Amino acid sequence: MHIHEFQEMMKRLYFQRDFDRGVNGTFNWLVDEVVELGEELKGIDREATEKEFADIIAWLASLANIMGIDLEKAAINKYNNICPKCQHSPCHCTF
Amino acid sequence: MHIHEFQEMMKRLYFQRDFDRGVNGTFNWLVDEVVELGEELKGIDREATEKEFADIIAWLASLANIMGIDLEKAAINKYNNICPKCQHSPCHCTF
Repeated sequence: MHIHEFQEMMKRLYFQRDFDRGVNGTFNWLVDEVVELGEELKGIDREATEKEFADIIAWLASLANIMGIDLEKAAINKYNNICPKCQHSPCHCTF
Repeated sequence: MHIHEFQEMMKRLYFQRDFDRGVNGTFNWLVDEVVELGEELKGIDREATEKEFADIIAWLASLANIMGIDLEKAAINKYNNICPKCQHSPCHCTF
């Protein structure tokens, strides 16, 4: 599934709720999901960990929807087969 | 671009660095990127905001790579045209 298709699916499922909640409230949900992933990383529940990965990309897509940002375009614009910092593939950055 | 293709591109660019940094260090980078997005959301720099969205999906893909998790499969397994909580499209959850 394309990143854009996933974002469109999130729009069909959740746009009105996301819009009503607003940018700050939706960002806070994204933060909560990252915290939950951090908790899962301490454990051994593989399925629960995968669900947290799903939740983060889902809330990121929701936030992009209410901001009118195309997540796939944003991702490709910055990362397009070379490292945006050192311009190499694989990355040669030294930090 | 498929979610899986983006994750594979991140693997080509960054896998060795991500692997050497480890799960905790890579998770910490993801957290930092979410904090940076939160800062950008307070401003009006659209391009910078889009780059932060790109960074979050990039670090999420990097973390998935070193954990051997397929981000696209995880996303589709949880979100597949219906809300995983209420089983409706669009979502009918009342919380």
